[in-house]
Amino acid sequence: MTKPLNVKIYYEDTDAGGVVYYANYLKYMERARTEYLSDHGVSVAEFHNRGCMFAVVDVEIHYKRPARLGETIQVMTEIVNVTPVTMSIKHHITRDNILLVEADVRIACLDPTGKPRRIPEEMKITAG
Amino acid sequence: MTKPLNVKIYYEDTDAGGVVYYANYLKYMERARTEYLSDHGVSVAEFHNRGCMFAVVDVEIHYKRPARLGETIQVMTEIVNVTPVTMSIKHHITRDNILLVEADVRIACLDPTGKPRRIPEEMKITAG
Amino acid sequence: MTKPLNVKIYYEDTDAGGVVYYANYLKYMERARTEYLSDHGVSVAEFHNRGCMFAVVDVEIHYKRPARLGETIQVMTEIVNVTPVTMSIKHHITRDNILLVEADVRIACLDPTGKPRRIPEEMKITAG
Amino acid sequence: MTKPLNVKIYYEDTDAGGVVYYANYLKYMERARTEYLSDHGVSVAEFHNRGCMFAVVDVEIHYKRPARLGETIQVMTEIVNVTPVTMSIKHHITRDNILLVEADVRIACLDPTGKPRRIPEEMKITAG
Repeated sequence: MTKPLNVKIYYEDTDAGGVVYYANYLKYMERARTEYLSDHGVSVAEFHNRGCMFAVVDVEIHYKRPARLGETIQVMTEIVNVTPVTMSIKHHITRDNILLVEADVRIACLDPTGKPRRIPEEMKITAG
Repeated sequence: MTKPLNVKIYYEDTDAGGVVYYANYLKYMERARTEYLSDHGVSVAEFHNRGCMFAVVDVEIHYKRPARLGETIQVMTEIVNVTPVTMSIKHHITRDNILLVEADVRIACLDPTGKPRRIPEEMKITAG
Repeated sequence: MTKPLNVKIYYEDTDAGGVVYYANYLKYMERARTEYLSDHGVSVAEFHNRGCMFAVVDVEIHYKRPARLGETIQVMTEIVNVTPVTMSIKHHITRDNILLVEADVRIACLDPTGKPRRIPEEMKITAG
Repeated sequence: MTKPLNVKIYYEDTDAGGVVYYANYLKYMERARTEYLSDHGVSVAEFHNRGCMFAVVDVEIHYKRPARLGETIQVMTEIVNVTPVTMSIKHHITRDNILLVEADVRIACLDPTGKPRRIPEEMKITAG
């Protein structure tokens, strides 16, 4: 199982509806993916500097319950599939074990000109 | 057909990969929905002030090509289905008629306590 | 006098306090500067692609009154001083001629390694 | 002395210039203020829910050096003055003890209608 990333909700995260703005959950999921990869020895920044940039290809996201100012939420990351050019990742976002958001994200690797390239071997983390 | 919303890309929109950050397209789609509704006589801010808040329930988004600093992109909005409690919307984002992003978004209406409520009649815009 | 940039306020701009989040005004000022320069024949994106990046050096900003969801605000830009390496700019943000925010911003030009460089002649717009 | 808040830099924080976007430092300073107050027994969210909202009145900020993708920066918070209606705060942002950004921020307390109100006694943390 993956170690969840804790995210504290500040004013910057919320909107006039009093809850976290819907686009911001995509930021938290990317933070969690980055830390997940880091825990497995893969530095997104280092790959970036070597010309291999992560790009999100598809997102399917379901918003169940909102998060609010001052709360701390948990963002889980699980790699569900790896192909030569993409990784499929599942995220669950919870607060006190209550599901707030779930999402499937597929990412690819791009070279500096924006063309897809094979995911480097050392970046391939086994699914599950 | 819907009038597209033009969005100019500034530094705030981009990331170190040199392209628009993936979460930001959700902002542009919301701007476009808001203007679409406004063109049809529905003010999101007025409904907000009367205790009817739009909340996104589901998003499925596919990123085809990136947008870059200084470009102007077009965001199209089309209502594809309306039920008593949700609206389903399709967005296409293009630049010079080249498809960059497409997405399906489902939104609901919430009361100030966060409970789903029927979409007010005057907010219901016929699909298509 | 400068042509103001109109900025419509969406959910993305607001926070749980019901008003525009304070950091976002810096985005609007940059949009306005970019359009101001564009109106004077200077493309920020083109300079960026040629290795001359604008960087903000100092900001002094005073928040007088808040902007809210659905409002349209006006962002004014005035160049007050130009040196070989910096430009000093004054911004006023108003709504219906009521002052909301005023700010002084100083920007410099950096090369791709982050070192300050002389502002290109064609970018120098006379103060006032 | 205050305990610094560590902030890791993700893609969301950066722009096409390859560095942290200038408005984002205001977010980090607010996160740090919130944690500073929390360490002193003051919950911003709780005050918010009781109708006392923090609002930034003035910011003076100087950008010395940029932060980049993958770096972790430290945000220091120091309360330098407290009046019945405002608090003046100094922030230093460093990376490996190198100064990146420094700022003076003045905040006030607003009631839900947006009018200034006295800072509650329990929120007053002695300067220094």
